[in-house]
Amino acid sequence: MFRHYAAAFLAACFVATTVQSEPARPRLRDLGVEVGVFAPGPLNAITDVAGVRVGHDTLIEGDRLRTGATAIVPHEGDLFQEKVPAAVVVGNGFGKLVGSTQVNELGQLETPILLTNTLNVWEAAATLAEEALAAPGNEAVRSVNPVVGETNDGYLNDIRSRALKPEHFRAALSGAESGPVEEGSVGAGTGTRTMGYKGGIGTSSRKLPHSLGGGYTVGVLTQTNFSGLLTVAGAPVWRDFGPKPYPEHDLSSKDGSCMIVVATDAPIDARQLKRLALRALVGMGRTGADFSNGSGDYVIAFSTSELVRIQADQSEQTIPRLSEASLTPLFDAVAEATEEAILNAILRATTVQGRDGNVSEAIPIERLKDSLRRYGAISSDDE
Amino acid sequence: MFRHYAAAFLAACFVATTVQSEPARPRLRDLGVEVGVFAPGPLNAITDVAGVRVGHDTLIEGDRLRTGATAIVPHEGDLFQEKVPAAVVVGNGFGKLVGSTQVNELGQLETPILLTNTLNVWEAAATLAEEALAAPGNEAVRSVNPVVGETNDGYLNDIRSRALKPEHFRAALSGAESGPVEEGSVGAGTGTRTMGYKGGIGTSSRKLPHSLGGGYTVGVLTQTNFSGLLTVAGAPVWRDFGPKPYPEHDLSSKDGSCMIVVATDAPIDARQLKRLALRALVGMGRTGADFSNGSGDYVIAFSTSELVRIQADQSEQTIPRLSEASLTPLFDAVAEATEEAILNAILRATTVQGRDGNVSEAIPIERLKDSLRRYGAISSDDE
Amino acid sequence: MFRHYAAAFLAACFVATTVQSEPARPRLRDLGVEVGVFAPGPLNAITDVAGVRVGHDTLIEGDRLRTGATAIVPHEGDLFQEKVPAAVVVGNGFGKLVGSTQVNELGQLETPILLTNTLNVWEAAATLAEEALAAPGNEAVRSVNPVVGETNDGYLNDIRSRALKPEHFRAALSGAESGPVEEGSVGAGTGTRTMGYKGGIGTSSRKLPHSLGGGYTVGVLTQTNFSGLLTVAGAPVWRDFGPKPYPEHDLSSKDGSCMIVVATDAPIDARQLKRLALRALVGMGRTGADFSNGSGDYVIAFSTSELVRIQADQSEQTIPRLSEASLTPLFDAVAEATEEAILNAILRATTVQGRDGNVSEAIPIERLKDSLRRYGAISSDDE
Amino acid sequence: MFRHYAAAFLAACFVATTVQSEPARPRLRDLGVEVGVFAPGPLNAITDVAGVRVGHDTLIEGDRLRTGATAIVPHEGDLFQEKVPAAVVVGNGFGKLVGSTQVNELGQLETPILLTNTLNVWEAAATLAEEALAAPGNEAVRSVNPVVGETNDGYLNDIRSRALKPEHFRAALSGAESGPVEEGSVGAGTGTRTMGYKGGIGTSSRKLPHSLGGGYTVGVLTQTNFSGLLTVAGAPVWRDFGPKPYPEHDLSSKDGSCMIVVATDAPIDARQLKRLALRALVGMGRTGADFSNGSGDYVIAFSTSELVRIQADQSEQTIPRLSEASLTPLFDAVAEATEEAILNAILRATTVQGRDGNVSEAIPIERLKDSLRRYGAISSDDE
Repeated sequence: MFRHYAAAFLAACFVATTVQSEPARPRLRDLGVEVGVFAPGPLNAITDVAGVRVGHDTLIEGDRLRTGATAIVPHEGDLFQEKVPAAVVVGNGFGKLVGSTQVNELGQLETPILLTNTLNVWEAAATLAEEALAAPGNEAVRSVNPVVGETNDGYLNDIRSRALKPEHFRAALSGAESGPVEEGSVGAGTGTRTMGYKGGIGTSSRKLPHSLGGGYTVGVLTQTNFSGLLTVAGAPVWRDFGPKPYPEHDLSSKDGSCMIVVATDAPIDARQLKRLALRALVGMGRTGADFSNGSGDYVIAFSTSELVRIQADQSEQTIPRLSEASLTPLFDAVAEATEEAILNAILRATTVQGRDGNVSEAIPIERLKDSLRRYGAISSDDE
Repeated sequence: MFRHYAAAFLAACFVATTVQSEPARPRLRDLGVEVGVFAPGPLNAITDVAGVRVGHDTLIEGDRLRTGATAIVPHEGDLFQEKVPAAVVVGNGFGKLVGSTQVNELGQLETPILLTNTLNVWEAAATLAEEALAAPGNEAVRSVNPVVGETNDGYLNDIRSRALKPEHFRAALSGAESGPVEEGSVGAGTGTRTMGYKGGIGTSSRKLPHSLGGGYTVGVLTQTNFSGLLTVAGAPVWRDFGPKPYPEHDLSSKDGSCMIVVATDAPIDARQLKRLALRALVGMGRTGADFSNGSGDYVIAFSTSELVRIQADQSEQTIPRLSEASLTPLFDAVAEATEEAILNAILRATTVQGRDGNVSEAIPIERLKDSLRRYGAISSDDE
Repeated sequence: MFRHYAAAFLAACFVATTVQSEPARPRLRDLGVEVGVFAPGPLNAITDVAGVRVGHDTLIEGDRLRTGATAIVPHEGDLFQEKVPAAVVVGNGFGKLVGSTQVNELGQLETPILLTNTLNVWEAAATLAEEALAAPGNEAVRSVNPVVGETNDGYLNDIRSRALKPEHFRAALSGAESGPVEEGSVGAGTGTRTMGYKGGIGTSSRKLPHSLGGGYTVGVLTQTNFSGLLTVAGAPVWRDFGPKPYPEHDLSSKDGSCMIVVATDAPIDARQLKRLALRALVGMGRTGADFSNGSGDYVIAFSTSELVRIQADQSEQTIPRLSEASLTPLFDAVAEATEEAILNAILRATTVQGRDGNVSEAIPIERLKDSLRRYGAISSDDE
Repeated sequence: MFRHYAAAFLAACFVATTVQSEPARPRLRDLGVEVGVFAPGPLNAITDVAGVRVGHDTLIEGDRLRTGATAIVPHEGDLFQEKVPAAVVVGNGFGKLVGSTQVNELGQLETPILLTNTLNVWEAAATLAEEALAAPGNEAVRSVNPVVGETNDGYLNDIRSRALKPEHFRAALSGAESGPVEEGSVGAGTGTRTMGYKGGIGTSSRKLPHSLGGGYTVGVLTQTNFSGLLTVAGAPVWRDFGPKPYPEHDLSSKDGSCMIVVATDAPIDARQLKRLALRALVGMGRTGADFSNGSGDYVIAFSTSELVRIQADQSEQTIPRLSEASLTPLFDAVAEATEEAILNAILRATTVQGRDGNVSEAIPIERLKDSLRRYGAISSDDE
């Protein structure tokens, strides 16, 4: 009964035993592949949303540690004093996300977001809290709601050692900067795997035309670590290429998680951000994600617009409100950018060998291009 | 800034002025296209889940009425006396779904499900309630929770006339039968449109191997009426084929809704059914759905297993409980079957001309096949 | 093990066989009893929120019909063209509430609210839709989301006859007016019962001081029909007074529902209204409500502030935003006004005899006053 | 406009400057006051639910540290290998609860619950994770979902110092035992305040008669730290007794949180536990809690029944399922036990002087008894 899919499947492609230095790897658009209908921003990164900064700290040590942290900082100011509207959506809640109930009750984010491995979220959260408590002007603060997401890098990383310490998280935070974002096997993506290949951090953005959605920008950053059937801009490359779904009818390969961070400069409120966040799951689904039982799939969305920031000391502010109907292009933009961010994570990720000889291979680019050509996702003209 | 997509776009394909008799139209697998990894059941329909019956009533009258109703009946018994575990998931709540809060509070469905047009849901609900009140053995019943979904067929149908009456809904219910399910422009799909083409009712199923998920069956039925960029088994046929996204940068074409009904014979509880239901949205996303602001996208999932039916007069029952991990293949099956059901709806739907000369064209099959070949979704061998 | 409570219980108090004309019945404050800390508005009614109107239609016919409808109209304009921010909270979802998913997705209410009996909600919803479709300026409208709540008056009313027709609902709507609100056995409260006594419609309001919460007003209207242990401003009058909890250890007396409508002129958004709405359940709990399995307990909250109305044709508006911290007095006001509205419903309700000789007695005022004195809820000075 | 309430209010009652040794303080029933209709279990504590153990670790050090941790352990086995059905309900989400999304997705609790102060939740969570990782048989575990709740003891405790370390949490866990539970200013309640008085840890239970709800037991433990108008078994003692609501119309006194843990031996599932958990908020409301903006009010409910434990290695189990209707007595039991647990916390709490000379006074028992007599909550016979 099980569907026949194996004709083009090459089991041999996973034999690999060493981590080699590899040439620079392409992003999706470098292959001539486009996703969706809207144009990316100049960097095609979450940092196209003005003010957003990203920082990584990568821990590769000995044979067993392959992990790290990634910080997403919404704006340059003191986030605790100038909170941003935010929302969290749970796609599949098998995960240790810290901070969601307060974000959703108040519609506010008051710390940067940290991503890391499953068993270090609490140290990351404590570090965010300490940073907020220590910031100038916050001497009287006695309550902070840090937000930390995670995926499980335990195949490559000795996750049980809980190796990340406050200094790693502080390094990710203090290193956060605007400009291009490093992708792939870096920061919180150092040890993650995705649909049979090495995954990691990926990012993408969309800049809406002024005639649709007011010219706002949407940026997405993902930490990819999930199972599924890799699909690139619709092309079912997994059929050519593997991996095999349910090998030996075994469920154990179906696992993992995806953290998705959505930023926008559109001046929208927390309920509207929740609507946006849901569309990130649509983009994720298009990459072939299977949202398996064991997957912790979460979206955190926030608005950076200065017009809607929450000034802690004001009991009433005047803000813009966008109509619900005007959100539709933003919805599309979120889905597109999420799909592309995930694919960028896989494309840019380099092979990593980790604990106990476990290896996760980078996706082979030439083979992928062949497959994409077969499915018309790359034309001759595109190259 | 707006993405260039129009090269292969043929505006002429929409010129059509009459409703003609058309040759029998294929389902997706008739084209040699497969979605996902699991095999369909014998009918590739929701009726592969034993006991489930489907009935349509179609109202085509004069120049202006193009609407109808579709009934999904979970089992042959008295559903009020033998309720089934059920859950409702809201993808985008711009819709008039009736009955969701009680289904989710109690985890139970106690009437058949009716699908119809947006402005007749209340008559449909009243009819379901009257049928339950009138059933033998229910003489003392004073509370019934009917469940009715809808999409808006107002482009083709004079929806404001609210033309459907109790007899139409009763006809759909009493005509419900097992066996093959009529698809396309029929019943609640008579007047619906999908991603630029005529939509309607579609169905599909998956039968899991015994070694995965216990050999259970999942069946899906959809009422498709939404905007987006038509994608067939990953192939972005909208690029070749239209329609144009955001024509004239106008949002008015972005609209519509999708109702998805998921049935399974797996003996799972309401919380687990909610997890399954969410995966239907993943399948819907893969067809190119844009989940626009105006879309009412809902999933209703129920289990037909006799082992978990709720016997109204028993305060304690003994039931099986499947582990959460064993749900993963069911999740995949739901996503696959939903994607295929939506594509079947579009493929099987015939051109309909309705009110004020408005026409919705059936998707042209030959052109579609050309496009699918271009994207490798049909090989030469497949035909 | 069952608690001893019966010492003061007088079983005889329920012997009653005829419906008599009764003298005017007091509201809670007429007894000298106060709830909470804030002062009511001038009418102590939901109509203290400027613009809100209430209308009833009562159907008492023959021996068996004891039912009706109550309309709550948020403002004088066309609600479909000028929608109001709104939210629905489900306390216990054993109920047939119509319209909740769209209210919560969009944060908007676009029709008046109707309350009625359980088995007539769909006719009420259809009437609201027809009224919106027929209103001047709505000729092109093809989607309307009516909101209807209900409780089950089937003990007194022949609810299975589904006796209410569009004209009853139109009468409630067209009769809606500002000013004092009729309470007790009227409109949607004609046949309802509450904690052993006749229940019905009740209302109350709170006007905040300017120094707290900006001087805003909160108004609440309830349709009471639930079981529990009647508690009046904290006084456990049920101990003196009955009814007996779990008589004969039978669960069948534990049932019913409560619909709560909360209006405010505070310019707050849908997420904030959801926070307010939850506090209505707190007030309901304080009256002794038991939120039994069979209870359909819902809160619908909306803001009438002109500053936050949603203009259908505007893609961007400028609105005020109140801080989350400033909501606390509004939270208290909602809880207080809900508690008092429920008690007013019971106090003002008159004895009703309905189908099959079933009778629900009005609470005996003198006996209640004795009990309230015993618990210090009325002092000698208060009378 | 602000309600006149101050007649009986004695501002003087708060003048207190030293922490004195105090005589043993009563629980609620020692005063002859009963709440609700069901009888408590033998200990009137959460430990009446067989297998549940509670442990405290209290940190009182120097002038500034007044904090601690409380552990609730559901059963004697390895909780990670034998998980229990569980659910989390958010009353007001201004709080740092760790672990809620996974509990609600899977319906499972896999670690003990720790309660502590707001700024140490992450250390508590890390400790729970480490304990699970280190347990025999868990050598291959790479994902753990600890559950930690908190309230903010920052008025008495130097919360910014984040003084609690893993050893404190381990002490609470390893000290967990069955039998009577220490209440008041102990463990996670060391530094908390409630409605103007010292609060802390409180507990209560209910044992249902066999003829109602099958003789199951419900136990509740609360960590109380919220504002409101203290109401004891309905008696509005705050009117006699203070504190003044909104003193100087200042919102700053309106704050705090309440963590509620509900245990039962009824064999119910996660959805049903969520229904139970909501009723704890009803009991909390009856004590006068105001659910202010700044309150983090959460309920965690679990079933200890061996019949429904989740065996990690079984893909299918056979379990009992109680009908929804049979839950009603359990609902009442949860509300009653929660109300009584909160009152026990306040009654048993002793005066604590903490950082910067801040003092929170224990409620004066004799004055309280006078007030309770005035409101008929204590009769002469009761003493």
